[in-house]
Amino acid sequence: MTELPIVLDFARLRAAFAAGVTPVDLVTALLPRLDAADPAVFIATMPADALLAAARELTARAPEPNSLPLWGLPFAVKDNIDVAGLPTTAACPAFAYEPAEDATVVARLKAAGALVVGKTNLDQFATGLNGTRSPHGAPRCVFDADYVSGGSSSGSGVAVAAGLAAFALGTDTAGSGRVPAAFNNIVGIKPSPGRVSTSGVVPACRSIDVVTVFATSVADGLEARRVMDGFDDADAYSRAPATVALPASLRLGVPAPEEREFFGNAAYAALYEAAVARAQSLGAEIVPFDYRPFREAAALLYEGPWVAERLHAVTPFIDAHAADMDPVVRGIVEGARGMTAVDAFEGQYRLAAFRRAADAEWAKVDALILPTSPDIQTVEAMRVDPVALNARFGRFTNFANFFGCAAIAVPAGFTQGGLPFGVQLVAPQDTDEALGAFASALHAAAGTGAGLDRNLVLAPVAAMQEDRILVTVVGAHLTGMPLNGELTELGGRLVREGRTAPFYRLYALPGTVPAKPGLVRDPAFAGPGIAVEVWSLDPAGFGRFVAGIPQPLGIGKLALDDGSEVSGFVCEPSAIRGALEVTEFGGWRAYVAARTKAA
Amino acid sequence: MTELPIVLDFARLRAAFAAGVTPVDLVTALLPRLDAADPAVFIATMPADALLAAARELTARAPEPNSLPLWGLPFAVKDNIDVAGLPTTAACPAFAYEPAEDATVVARLKAAGALVVGKTNLDQFATGLNGTRSPHGAPRCVFDADYVSGGSSSGSGVAVAAGLAAFALGTDTAGSGRVPAAFNNIVGIKPSPGRVSTSGVVPACRSIDVVTVFATSVADGLEARRVMDGFDDADAYSRAPATVALPASLRLGVPAPEEREFFGNAAYAALYEAAVARAQSLGAEIVPFDYRPFREAAALLYEGPWVAERLHAVTPFIDAHAADMDPVVRGIVEGARGMTAVDAFEGQYRLAAFRRAADAEWAKVDALILPTSPDIQTVEAMRVDPVALNARFGRFTNFANFFGCAAIAVPAGFTQGGLPFGVQLVAPQDTDEALGAFASALHAAAGTGAGLDRNLVLAPVAAMQEDRILVTVVGAHLTGMPLNGELTELGGRLVREGRTAPFYRLYALPGTVPAKPGLVRDPAFAGPGIAVEVWSLDPAGFGRFVAGIPQPLGIGKLALDDGSEVSGFVCEPSAIRGALEVTEFGGWRAYVAARTKAA
Repeated sequence: MTELPIVLDFARLRAAFAAGVTPVDLVTALLPRLDAADPAVFIATMPADALLAAARELTARAPEPNSLPLWGLPFAVKDNIDVAGLPTTAACPAFAYEPAEDATVVARLKAAGALVVGKTNLDQFATGLNGTRSPHGAPRCVFDADYVSGGSSSGSGVAVAAGLAAFALGTDTAGSGRVPAAFNNIVGIKPSPGRVSTSGVVPACRSIDVVTVFATSVADGLEARRVMDGFDDADAYSRAPATVALPASLRLGVPAPEEREFFGNAAYAALYEAAVARAQSLGAEIVPFDYRPFREAAALLYEGPWVAERLHAVTPFIDAHAADMDPVVRGIVEGARGMTAVDAFEGQYRLAAFRRAADAEWAKVDALILPTSPDIQTVEAMRVDPVALNARFGRFTNFANFFGCAAIAVPAGFTQGGLPFGVQLVAPQDTDEALGAFASALHAAAGTGAGLDRNLVLAPVAAMQEDRILVTVVGAHLTGMPLNGELTELGGRLVREGRTAPFYRLYALPGTVPAKPGLVRDPAFAGPGIAVEVWSLDPAGFGRFVAGIPQPLGIGKLALDDGSEVSGFVCEPSAIRGALEVTEFGGWRAYVAARTKAA
Repeated sequence: MTELPIVLDFARLRAAFAAGVTPVDLVTALLPRLDAADPAVFIATMPADALLAAARELTARAPEPNSLPLWGLPFAVKDNIDVAGLPTTAACPAFAYEPAEDATVVARLKAAGALVVGKTNLDQFATGLNGTRSPHGAPRCVFDADYVSGGSSSGSGVAVAAGLAAFALGTDTAGSGRVPAAFNNIVGIKPSPGRVSTSGVVPACRSIDVVTVFATSVADGLEARRVMDGFDDADAYSRAPATVALPASLRLGVPAPEEREFFGNAAYAALYEAAVARAQSLGAEIVPFDYRPFREAAALLYEGPWVAERLHAVTPFIDAHAADMDPVVRGIVEGARGMTAVDAFEGQYRLAAFRRAADAEWAKVDALILPTSPDIQTVEAMRVDPVALNARFGRFTNFANFFGCAAIAVPAGFTQGGLPFGVQLVAPQDTDEALGAFASALHAAAGTGAGLDRNLVLAPVAAMQEDRILVTVVGAHLTGMPLNGELTELGGRLVREGRTAPFYRLYALPGTVPAKPGLVRDPAFAGPGIAVEVWSLDPAGFGRFVAGIPQPLGIGKLALDDGSEVSGFVCEPSAIRGALEVTEFGGWRAYVAARTKAA
C-alpha cells in the first residue's frame, strides 16, 4: 500500500483490498503512522510482529479479500476492554491485569476479520468526559492541540480521527462514546444498553455501561456494531437486541430555548441552530420539548448514588491503592463512601420519576437532536477546574443510558477558530438501526468529512425498511368502499393507486354481500388493466387481514402495470362461472358508479 | 337478603341482585356478620351509615342490577392502601394518616360498582408473611384458630375466607398476596409488577410492590384485577399491561427433589405431590427444573439490600417513632441501617446474575407449580421464633416480584388435621390472563371449594385463545416435503392431519419448482377428498407466509371434511389449464410417491 488515506474509512480500505492490497501490506503501511502518533493516544500498541502475524493469520483463514464482514480492518480498543495478550489497565497502571481472553465484543470483531492495533488511553476508570485524567497524558483534539480530545474514550476518538484505525471501541456511561466524537469530527455509535455485551469490560457503572464504536461514517460504525451486537450469556445485563422502527418522517425534539445551555459558547450555540436547520431541511419536523426531566436524570449520574457503582468497580483495589489513582478520579469515586443503601433506592425512585416525566416528552417526538457537548475547553483549563468543566460536557449526554436510549453522535461543523462541533440523535431503546439513515444524512449535510479528512466522501446508510407487506385491493376494500375499514383498523396505509397488468379480467361475483369482484388472470387477454389500490400492513395485520377473507376469494400475487408482483386478491375458478364480466369498466369503482347511476 | 352464603362468590351475589336483592339489602345482611367478625381482621370497618349510603349512591348512579362490572360487590382493603374517609395505618397507629383520596385501584373498583366494607389488619408495614406482627392482634387461619392466617395481608385473606367480603385487596412484595390465600383455602391473584397501580399504597419495597386480589375463585379474582389493571401516570413504576400467551398445553416446572423443602411438614409435602399429579392429569407436562437461582434471588429480599427500601419507606417516621413500631418489624427494617450504596448495587448485580441463571430454567418450562408456603405454624410458635419461621413461608414466593412474574395461588387440599394447603402457578411477566384457565381448573380439581365453604361450586375461567391462525397445506409444504421449512421457520406448528370436503380436485401444476399441486373447488364434484395438514402460525408468521407464496397460488378458504372452513391454498384458474388432474391419488404425497416409484 503506497499511501495510506488520511482517515481509514471502510470503503477505501476495501477497494484497496479488492485491488490486491493485502492486510499485511496495510499493516506494514500503518505501522509507521502508529509509531509516529502522539504517545498519549495509545497505552499499548500491538507489537509489529504480532500485528503482522494477525494479518497473515487472517489471510490464511479467509484468503478471499473482503470475504469476512470486517476483513482486514484495523481497530483500536479502549484500554478498559480486554484484548488477550495485552494488559488491561483502565489507565491506572497499578490496576493492570493480563486478561486470559478477549472481551466478547473484541472476539466477535476479530472473528469478523478485524485486526487490533492497540489499546487506547482514557480518563482513568472511564470516569470523565474530557480526556485529561490519565497518567499517560492527555490526547488532544486533532484540530487544535490546546484543546481536549474529549473522554473518557479519548484515545479511541483520536485514533479514528487521525487515521490510526478504521474504527475504535469506546465505552459510554455518561457520554464517553460520544463527546470524543464531537471534539474530533467523527461519528460515535452508542448502542442501546444491553444489546452489546460488556463482558470483559472494566465496569464504570455496571448497570448502564455500554460499549461504543467510533468511525468515520455512520455506515461504517453501524457495520461494526452489527458484528458486536447480540446476546451474551456471560453478561447479566445483556439481552437479545430488538429492532424498533422509527417513522420515515421524524419528529425531532429540540430543547425549549431556556434549556439550550451552551455555557457562553456562542459558536457552539450557533452551530447547533444550524444543525437543527439542516435536520429540518432533510425533512424532519422540529418539535420543542421540555428537557428538564432529562437534565434532572442526567444530574443523578454524578450527583446521585450511581457513583457507588464506580466505587464498587474499584473495590477492593482502592483500599490498597488509593494513592495510585488519578486524584480527580479518586475524589469522585470516594464521594460514594458515605452513601447508604437508602440513598441508592432514593436515587432509583427519583430516576423512575424523571423517566416517567420524560415519557410525556417522548410522546411528542420520535428522537431528540441535541448538542453532543455544548462546550469544549483547553487542556489547561481542565487542569484548573477539572470537575465543573467536565460536567458541562455531559449536560446533554448523561441521561441516555439511564433511559435505555440509542444514540448516534455525528459531526456538525466547525467554529471559525477551527474547532469541531457535534450533535447527537437520541431515541428510545433499540432504535439503533432506525436512527442510522437520518444520522448519516445529517452528517453528510454538514459537509465536514470525518476526522482530519474534511473532504471525505461518506458512505451512505440506506433507510431502514419498515417491516410491512404490500397488498393490492381491487373491490370492496378500496378507499370509501364498504370493507375499507378492515384495512384501516389493522393499521393499513394507502401506498398508491395503480392498475394491474393488461391480462386481468374483472367479474362481479354473484350473491356476495357486500358486492365483491373477482379478478382473474388470463394470459391471452390484453385489456385496459384494472384499477387497484396498493396498501401496506405490518406482517401481523396482513396475516389477520388474509385470515378474514371469505371463500371464494384469497390472497395470491397480482402483476401490476409497472411490472411489479404484489400480494393481492385472487379468486377461485368455480366462483367465476356465470359471473358478469365487467372488465370494460376498467375497475370496480367505475362499475359500481355506473350501476348506481343506472339503478 | 334473608341468608348470606358462607362465602360471597360473585355468581351468587349477582344472581341475588338479578332476583331483586339490592345492594342495600346485601349490606344490611352483611353488617351483623362484620360486627361479629374476629376483631383482629379489620383495623377499621366502614361505618354502617356510610356503607349503606354507598350502596344507595350506587343504585342511584347505576340502577340496573349488575350494570357495572363489580356492581354491589363488597370488598375489603388492606390497611396500607388508601381509602378516602378512613385512616391508613399500615398497622402502626403512630403512623396513621387521613388520605385525601382513594388509592388508584380503590377508585377504579368503586367506579366499577364495588363497595368498601373496611380496612384489614396486616403485618405492620407489610413486613412479614405470617400475620402476627400487628398491635391489633393476629387474625387466625379460618380452619384452626391456633394457626396463623398468613400475612402480611392477614385480614384480607380471612375476610374473603370467612365471607366478610366478596374479594379483598392485599399487597405482595415477598408473598403477602399469596401466603394468606394458602392458609385460608382461597385464591390469591398476584399481578405482574407494574400492571396494577401502587399509587396510594404505603410502600414496602417500592420497586417491586404489587397490589393483589383475594377471591373465592380465579374467575372472580381476575374480574377484579381487570378492573384494577392499567397504566397510572401517578405511579412511576406503572406500565401499560400487555397480554402474553402461554401454550394450551403447559410445561409446568417442579423443583428437583433436593429443592422440595417442606421443613419437615410431611403433610404439606404429600399435598404438593398430589397437586402436581392433578396438574399432570389436567394435561400439563411436568418438568423438573433447578430452583436454586430462584431461591438465591428469594434470599436477597430480606438478606440483601432491599431491606433498605423498607427503611426508606418509614423514614423519617422511624427516627421519631421507633418505639411505636412492632419490635420484630423494627428489627428487620433497622437491619438496613449499616447498608451502603455499594451494597445496594452489589445486590442488584447478584440479582441480575440470578435472573440470568433463571432464564435458562424458564427456557425449559412455561410456568412453575410451587407450594405457596411449604409450612404453616401456630400463632404461639411464631411468637417464639418470629423471624426464622416466617422465612420458611417465603421460600417459594420471594423471587416472583424480583423476576417480574405473574402468580396465582390456589387451594390444593387439606391435611388430615384440617389445615389447608395451597399451590401457586408462577410464570413470566404479563402471563396474568394466560395463567387463569389452568389455575382455575387446578383449583376445581382439588375439590376444596373456597374459604369456609368447602362445597362451593367454582366459576370457571375460559382458556385464553392463543392468537394463532390455522392454515391448511396440501402440497410442497406438507411435513417432509421441500417447502415445509417455510412453515417451521416461521414458528408453525402442525395441528392435525385431515382431508378436504369431497368437492375438491387436485392438479399437478406444470413447470413449478419444486413441484406443486393446485387445489380447485368444484361444487358439482364428489371425490375422495384431498389429504391435508392443518398448521398454525402467529398472525405475523402467517402474514409473512402468505407474502412469500408465488403466483398462481394463493391463500383463501378451504372446506374440510369435518365441515370447518380454514385458510389454505387456492389456485388461480388460469394455472389449471392443461394441468394433470391427480385427484384419484387422494393427496399430493400419494401422487408424488407413485410418480417416484414409476420413475
